[in-house]
Amino acid sequence: MGAIAAHSGRDDGDPAAHDRPACSGGRPRMRAPATLDALFAPRSVAIIGASNDSNRIGGRPLRYLREAGFAGAVYPVNPRRNEVQGLRAYADVRDIPGPVDLAIVIVSADLVVETIEACAEKGIGCAIIFSSGFAEVGPEGARRQQRIEEIARAAGMRLLGPNCLGAFNSHSGFFGTFTQAFDTGVMFPGELGVVSQSGAAGAHLAYMCRQRCIGIGHWITTGNEADIEVSECVEWMAHAPHVKVIALFVEAIRNGPRFVRALEAAREHGKPVIAIKVGRSAAGALAAASHTGALVGEDKIYDAVLRQHGAYRAESIDELLDLTYASLQGRFPSNSRLGIVTTSGGLGILAADAAVQVGLAVAPLNEGARGKITAMIPFAGTRNPIDVTAQGVNEPILISRSIACALNEGGYGSLVCFLTSAPAVPSIGTPLLQALVSLRQDHPDAVIALEMVVPPEIRRQYEEAGFLVFEDLHRAIRTLHALDVIRNGFALQPSCVPDAPAATALPDVADEYNAKLLLGRHGIPVLAERVVSTPAQAAEAAREVGLPVVLKIVSPDIPHKTEVGGVVLDVRTVEAAEEQARALLHRVAEARPDARISGILVSPMRSGGIESICGVVNDAVFGPVVVFGLGGIHVELLRDVSFRLAPFDEAEAHRMIREIRGAQILLGARGGARGDVDALARSLAALSRFAVAHRDQVAEVDINPMMVLPEGEGVVALDALIVRSESARPQSVSNIPHGAENREDRSVLA
Amino acid sequence: MGAIAAHSGRDDGDPAAHDRPACSGGRPRMRAPATLDALFAPRSVAIIGASNDSNRIGGRPLRYLREAGFAGAVYPVNPRRNEVQGLRAYADVRDIPGPVDLAIVIVSADLVVETIEACAEKGIGCAIIFSSGFAEVGPEGARRQQRIEEIARAAGMRLLGPNCLGAFNSHSGFFGTFTQAFDTGVMFPGELGVVSQSGAAGAHLAYMCRQRCIGIGHWITTGNEADIEVSECVEWMAHAPHVKVIALFVEAIRNGPRFVRALEAAREHGKPVIAIKVGRSAAGALAAASHTGALVGEDKIYDAVLRQHGAYRAESIDELLDLTYASLQGRFPSNSRLGIVTTSGGLGILAADAAVQVGLAVAPLNEGARGKITAMIPFAGTRNPIDVTAQGVNEPILISRSIACALNEGGYGSLVCFLTSAPAVPSIGTPLLQALVSLRQDHPDAVIALEMVVPPEIRRQYEEAGFLVFEDLHRAIRTLHALDVIRNGFALQPSCVPDAPAATALPDVADEYNAKLLLGRHGIPVLAERVVSTPAQAAEAAREVGLPVVLKIVSPDIPHKTEVGGVVLDVRTVEAAEEQARALLHRVAEARPDARISGILVSPMRSGGIESICGVVNDAVFGPVVVFGLGGIHVELLRDVSFRLAPFDEAEAHRMIREIRGAQILLGARGGARGDVDALARSLAALSRFAVAHRDQVAEVDINPMMVLPEGEGVVALDALIVRSESARPQSVSNIPHGAENREDRSVLA
Repeated sequence: MGAIAAHSGRDDGDPAAHDRPACSGGRPRMRAPATLDALFAPRSVAIIGASNDSNRIGGRPLRYLREAGFAGAVYPVNPRRNEVQGLRAYADVRDIPGPVDLAIVIVSADLVVETIEACAEKGIGCAIIFSSGFAEVGPEGARRQQRIEEIARAAGMRLLGPNCLGAFNSHSGFFGTFTQAFDTGVMFPGELGVVSQSGAAGAHLAYMCRQRCIGIGHWITTGNEADIEVSECVEWMAHAPHVKVIALFVEAIRNGPRFVRALEAAREHGKPVIAIKVGRSAAGALAAASHTGALVGEDKIYDAVLRQHGAYRAESIDELLDLTYASLQGRFPSNSRLGIVTTSGGLGILAADAAVQVGLAVAPLNEGARGKITAMIPFAGTRNPIDVTAQGVNEPILISRSIACALNEGGYGSLVCFLTSAPAVPSIGTPLLQALVSLRQDHPDAVIALEMVVPPEIRRQYEEAGFLVFEDLHRAIRTLHALDVIRNGFALQPSCVPDAPAATALPDVADEYNAKLLLGRHGIPVLAERVVSTPAQAAEAAREVGLPVVLKIVSPDIPHKTEVGGVVLDVRTVEAAEEQARALLHRVAEARPDARISGILVSPMRSGGIESICGVVNDAVFGPVVVFGLGGIHVELLRDVSFRLAPFDEAEAHRMIREIRGAQILLGARGGARGDVDALARSLAALSRFAVAHRDQVAEVDINPMMVLPEGEGVVALDALIVRSESARPQSVSNIPHGAENREDRSVLA
Repeated sequence: MGAIAAHSGRDDGDPAAHDRPACSGGRPRMRAPATLDALFAPRSVAIIGASNDSNRIGGRPLRYLREAGFAGAVYPVNPRRNEVQGLRAYADVRDIPGPVDLAIVIVSADLVVETIEACAEKGIGCAIIFSSGFAEVGPEGARRQQRIEEIARAAGMRLLGPNCLGAFNSHSGFFGTFTQAFDTGVMFPGELGVVSQSGAAGAHLAYMCRQRCIGIGHWITTGNEADIEVSECVEWMAHAPHVKVIALFVEAIRNGPRFVRALEAAREHGKPVIAIKVGRSAAGALAAASHTGALVGEDKIYDAVLRQHGAYRAESIDELLDLTYASLQGRFPSNSRLGIVTTSGGLGILAADAAVQVGLAVAPLNEGARGKITAMIPFAGTRNPIDVTAQGVNEPILISRSIACALNEGGYGSLVCFLTSAPAVPSIGTPLLQALVSLRQDHPDAVIALEMVVPPEIRRQYEEAGFLVFEDLHRAIRTLHALDVIRNGFALQPSCVPDAPAATALPDVADEYNAKLLLGRHGIPVLAERVVSTPAQAAEAAREVGLPVVLKIVSPDIPHKTEVGGVVLDVRTVEAAEEQARALLHRVAEARPDARISGILVSPMRSGGIESICGVVNDAVFGPVVVFGLGGIHVELLRDVSFRLAPFDEAEAHRMIREIRGAQILLGARGGARGDVDALARSLAALSRFAVAHRDQVAEVDINPMMVLPEGEGVVALDALIVRSESARPQSVSNIPHGAENREDRSVLA
């Protein structure tokens, strides 16, 4: 076992650096938070509730600490025994003579409060509480959890759990966990950090990693998160020098901004974050008052947050493990073009199918390179896939030469080679390994995945030579694509704006007219329009704003104007304006005699653009989220929308626009006019700044439609609705008290 | 090794049964084709080009035949040796004293013709030709291939290959293959049949199956398919009593109807066909004259054919193997509802996410059942997922009782249980296995997948008890879904019509008017409309058909009328009709002075429905394919279309309509009027019959738009184009001479 992980992190000598806003130009510079050092590198550990039986929950930690060669002091605490597993036991943690850095608490829930009090008295820096029976079981447990939080906070003691599986640091041999995953041996050191809210999921990941020879250096399960929560762990690992890749299993984030900061710290340090976030099926749309609000679901926000901040969201444990394995090798593709070398024509086509499906480009080799391969292998496929045919199997040097040719002349960001059982066939295996090891020396940075189905010892030879090895072509290609996504995420600056304007009091925005006035002041183009009181004034206003016009009722009580006959489109004459205004007032009075009427809005009629929807929802966890989609069936039926945490800049807005499936419509699909995408991006970025400036007052914004005019002509908000926080703050599933969401009743689609 | 697979098949005593059309009411009744018995069950085998070196291509078949205990006679043929691997060798196949059922030909390409001649003289029933150097290498090879075809046909000898890896029957020990996949041991018998066009893919599948303990009974690689092709193999296996599941690796089908017949034979016998069809990325749209034609790609036709005829298309080798493994157990879900039992809350939610994503319903348990589980496990999650918590792990009987409760009261078609490493923990493993074996006895037919990561011997115990075992939750759930799809496919009648009308000569359909007249006679509703010659007649016709009207130019030379100003919509008066008709004739004369003008079409103006596109493309391999989609961006941008081989009935048409993503629009999404889906289905079925009746004359049909009116009001074809076969028969990629498509230049998207 290696040395204890002495945490150093990056320290640029500027003590105020970590207080800077994340976007004061260029990359954020953050100091390493040392907060979890006491947890991951204790010098002395008390086990309160230690058992003499090394197979019981109370016995496992001591057994694992010994198996892993933990060098610090270990003090079993058990009032009923003088000795536990051969060590002297203490009746009370306060009886321990020396200092204690960390306590592992394995007592029943009703004894935890007094145990934590004792730990506080002893001056222990950190306690890991395995016990369950807290917030996850109901109000009484929640009160108990709150009590231990208070004791710990007062004493300056950190808490992990309750209701967790603990943590370990395989470098120092500190194993503060009782997971059964190590029943057949503890974890060996490695460069992976694992953070899981679910103990069982964390244990499963540890078990799977061990089986796949992936060493986990630091591992932590946060359970009910009375104190230490997942974001802090990610941030600590982002700075920890022994951690190279971070794997995450998340159920619900409590503090959105802190989570974002943690992801940015990982990106800053070039550490891939590979996350499983569960709850896709359960998280329905938020309760919302606006059209936009109905489009946003908790899960889509997580999707957006992870993508926007450079993390990769994996769908399955297999995908997470494959990508973790590959990321630990530290090589990332330089572009999205995939080279395919194969010993089977049919499987080469299958590989091309898989590549195109995930989004890698199967670009053809140039003629020169194709000629070189044909010169070596007369009947080879040379376009890409490069099929070396049975001749390649019989003469393995042809395989490595073909790969070299593809790498040298194809400019592929990554390459996959299908070998099936060939490396295990004695007559082929040895020359093949030699040829590929030699190829590796000439191309040390190339990302090369080999598909092979061979015994572990053969597999290891190729891995040690720097190849990624997969048994299945699709998994290899899916992983290469994910590496490419991570590379892209690293290449982006964190999305940010120079300075969000200071929040100002929100004026009256109860009706469309005032909502648009306010948005107009924040940089979103609106029409020159007028509010009038009488039909005669409507006629005059129509003349002023220019015919044809649109008439709309203005009322704080009527958010959905069309339903009460409160909108008249395409009014072409001044006379018609007067007449239609009169009829409109009549209809509205009939339909809603109770409504307060502020007047009639007279606007120039605009048509000929592409209708879009731009909106904001203020999420309880992550704050304002901007939503974008095209009008009509695109959002309503196809739910083709993209999301971003606010604020963001125009570059991010461009990515947001291009992310929807229907983006081609804006970009001039099928000979249609290209919309003014630059102006749209400016407006989305402006909307994101507005949302942040008014995050305390605004619950939702709905610009529907935002008309995108042809290129060079801008965009214009034709209708807008601003919902104040007081009236309808959307509730996200993330609001459920923590510890409860694991259990029950996250309604799953049936 | 078991007995030789004596092929019996089903024989209902009616010698003409297999000649009946597949749809003469009820299920087709097909006699077993005995055609491949000589190949799969030879009593005597000659190996022409046999090598004394058992590691060479010429040496492996003899080695494998011996290792597998083949009981028949084996005759090495090698003019340069008296003995090969200890057996007497013959200089010429004609020197062999006794009869020879089958010859394996392993000589260089230039010697194959004379070898096949010798085999024909000897009266051999079947030859397997490993040699390459035929159609796959160019014209000279193609001529050589044609020559051996002719010799074999004249002699009544069957050919497998050339350029193939052969075939085996593990029941009889007949191994006519040189694949390296068996270097470490031949395949053991089992109930899987494998058919692969690609030798390497077939070998890879065999190797993977062996590794996963899946026994392959019959295996065949068809290579260049000079004679035996994939469809015949599938059909033979559909009838073969030892084959339970058929796995398929396809590059291109040569004879569409025969392939369809083979799939239907498998469905008839209740045998799942699990297919990989490569080329998704390469197969572009067909060259086509109509709008419909441009929507159809070769790959989409394969998709439709496989789905329509009950086969399952797998995307990856992993998926194919998982589903093969599960199908061999012979249990299929009774419905699409999935029960989830888990020892981890977080992974339970992950399982629910995966289920919803693939399309299984995670339906909640009823209150009574939930109460029962809570009574056993106080803090259990009971809704579904059912989270038995750590208590379940400590008391395994609680897991089996929870599963039993879910099966008894949840009515789930299948169930997945997450166990991770628990079955391998000694204190848990034994009681867990006992509890689950006992559960199995009470629920022998339930489809239950267990997620566990354990050593093979423990895994085997659960498999033998009738559980499916997976290491990854997602793979388990994906497989359960696929089993459900297969069950659904089996439940459907083959899509068919009572009797396709006899083909009649195709009248003049060069213009829209005549095309619609013809379609109208075949049961597709069209408008009452008139063709006139002069503006005055147009006015009169407008009065007759009813205002408002649409005017369109009628000309065999102008398929795209709008482009030349040849369409006027919404003409509201008789006077306007005359005036607009004059202007229209003028515009068309200016734009296309060369065009022959048949007249002006005067139609009633129809609006207020939902626009759809119904079309036909006559595929070179599969014959007429009907295409359906909604108008506008649905087909043009989203390519949201569905396909079916013609002919089909209204039930199939209903499935076709519901398959598109935008189907909700037709079914009354968001308060819109529900379209007349029944009438649409009738028209699609009528179009499919028309397409079959005129398959020799019609290349494409394009009904665009087919207006779907509100429920009860029918549909109406507002415009139609029929393209005759002579003018523009679409070319499919499948037209490439066989053997060539593996190699090169299937253009892959870059």
